[in-house]
Amino acid sequence: MLDKVYTALVHYPVLGRDGRIITTAVTNLDIHDIARSSRTYNVKKYYVVTHLPAQQDIVKKVLGYWTEGFGKGYNPNRSDALSIVELKSYVEDVIAEIEKNERQRPIIMFTSARIRPNTITYEEGRHIILNDPRPVLLLFGTGWGMPKELEEMCDYSLEPVRGKSDFNHLSVRAAVAIILDRLIGEAVLEK
Amino acid sequence: MLDKVYTALVHYPVLGRDGRIITTAVTNLDIHDIARSSRTYNVKKYYVVTHLPAQQDIVKKVLGYWTEGFGKGYNPNRSDALSIVELKSYVEDVIAEIEKNERQRPIIMFTSARIRPNTITYEEGRHIILNDPRPVLLLFGTGWGMPKELEEMCDYSLEPVRGKSDFNHLSVRAAVAIILDRLIGEAVLEK
Repeated sequence: MLDKVYTALVHYPVLGRDGRIITTAVTNLDIHDIARSSRTYNVKKYYVVTHLPAQQDIVKKVLGYWTEGFGKGYNPNRSDALSIVELKSYVEDVIAEIEKNERQRPIIMFTSARIRPNTITYEEGRHIILNDPRPVLLLFGTGWGMPKELEEMCDYSLEPVRGKSDFNHLSVRAAVAIILDRLIGEAVLEK
Repeated sequence: MLDKVYTALVHYPVLGRDGRIITTAVTNLDIHDIARSSRTYNVKKYYVVTHLPAQQDIVKKVLGYWTEGFGKGYNPNRSDALSIVELKSYVEDVIAEIEKNERQRPIIMFTSARIRPNTITYEEGRHIILNDPRPVLLLFGTGWGMPKELEEMCDYSLEPVRGKSDFNHLSVRAAVAIILDRLIGEAVLEK
């Protein structure tokens, strides 16, 4: 449902340059940009997923500055956007929280460079978001992609963005924006 | 035409918080993200527009590192993306260069939060890009918007993205990605 869409940015477990499992560093602008895009498309919560305490401290510091500290008064819009950000240690915690709040397990989607048995088009993904009563969690990886264990937790894989182009290296910030726009577009909640 | 699309990110003249003309600072990630999005959508050149010598030095340093320095070997994809970035002092220089290279003045489009006499839909913008033989320049502002003098240089104003949403504060990086996707989508050049 349009009022139950969630996003999550995963920093562990993700693939490194050599295909091994790594933890990526949290990037300040990933918090800001994806929060602003998520808020603009009426996403209910944007989860930043990292299990490292030092990295969690960075996330807390950014959120504190903008939602309680100086930033709140300086830029209320930014504060509004960051108010939907939530820190979690693992993807399992994200799913458990959504399940608890919505009393239903979310449908989980991610994007993949490959076509898989569970690949759907953006049109199909949009249909699910607009019509299925269950919540939808959009999972985004950092680093060099998502490991098999995360892929297998997902119900659907979305087609690659610009799969036919000779160059396809969008930043995760750009990819999230485009995917939210393709799935939700100009659809807004009726108040 | 699909093979003659240009993007430009303008740091001067733009509006400040109080509506006066300012110069904004160049942001490293604006260079990277918008170059990657532009390259992914087959944009011919991405112009970073700033007239301040100290800011131009920052742009040159970033480009040098990734297209000639250490970064070139470390991440060839990034080098590929940044190879389409060009530094210009003023929007007039951008238009003059495109006009010289293409032997035609570009059609200039920008996005606006307001509906204007020259506002077109993304569908109409897409039709122009796919069918009009002239080059197309997409102008993106930083800061709090574009001043009247820049707006008046534009042939078309694109509808606001998520104009009906109760919150509409995308980063310029996200806005460029979404607008390129709406205008170009999966269309690719025939080689």
